[in-house]
Amino acid sequence: MFVIITYDVGEKRVGKVCKKLREYLDWTQNSVFEGEITKGKLSRCLAELKSIMEVEDSLYLYKVENPRAIKKEVYGTDKSFDQLFL
Amino acid sequence: MFVIITYDVGEKRVGKVCKKLREYLDWTQNSVFEGEITKGKLSRCLAELKSIMEVEDSLYLYKVENPRAIKKEVYGTDKSFDQLFL
Repeated sequence: MFVIITYDVGEKRVGKVCKKLREYLDWTQNSVFEGEITKGKLSRCLAELKSIMEVEDSLYLYKVENPRAIKKEVYGTDKSFDQLFL
Repeated sequence: MFVIITYDVGEKRVGKVCKKLREYLDWTQNSVFEGEITKGKLSRCLAELKSIMEVEDSLYLYKVENPRAIKKEVYGTDKSFDQLFL
């Protein structure tokens, strides 16, 4: 399935959450990750994230079973593309 | 259709972009907006955003034609819900 994950966590945990998400998904911009992932890997990723997160943190997960059902368009500078060359 | 819009724009333009998106979609978290929107309104929204954005800014648009094809899950604090009571 295709997923988009956005997060808003305390400053101290941003690095940890970001590093964890990089293991499973592609970074797109700010606190947004996306990518294709299996149900099993997603469960593991979420369990690991929950162990990092505190009560005041939040994480949004958007799931699309059929990756072809979602279309992505980029306007302006594609920062995830830049990132590949940094 | 259901859309998710995330943006990464220069500090000076954050307020304008945010205000414009609020006219068309619901704010969820940080620089992420979501909601159901018609093709016509989306085109108008994008045209208005493009007139605000500069070359170094970026905006990601994820479109799902059938809103039932996308599932949303919230972990931790739902900040968009809090926002309703502020």
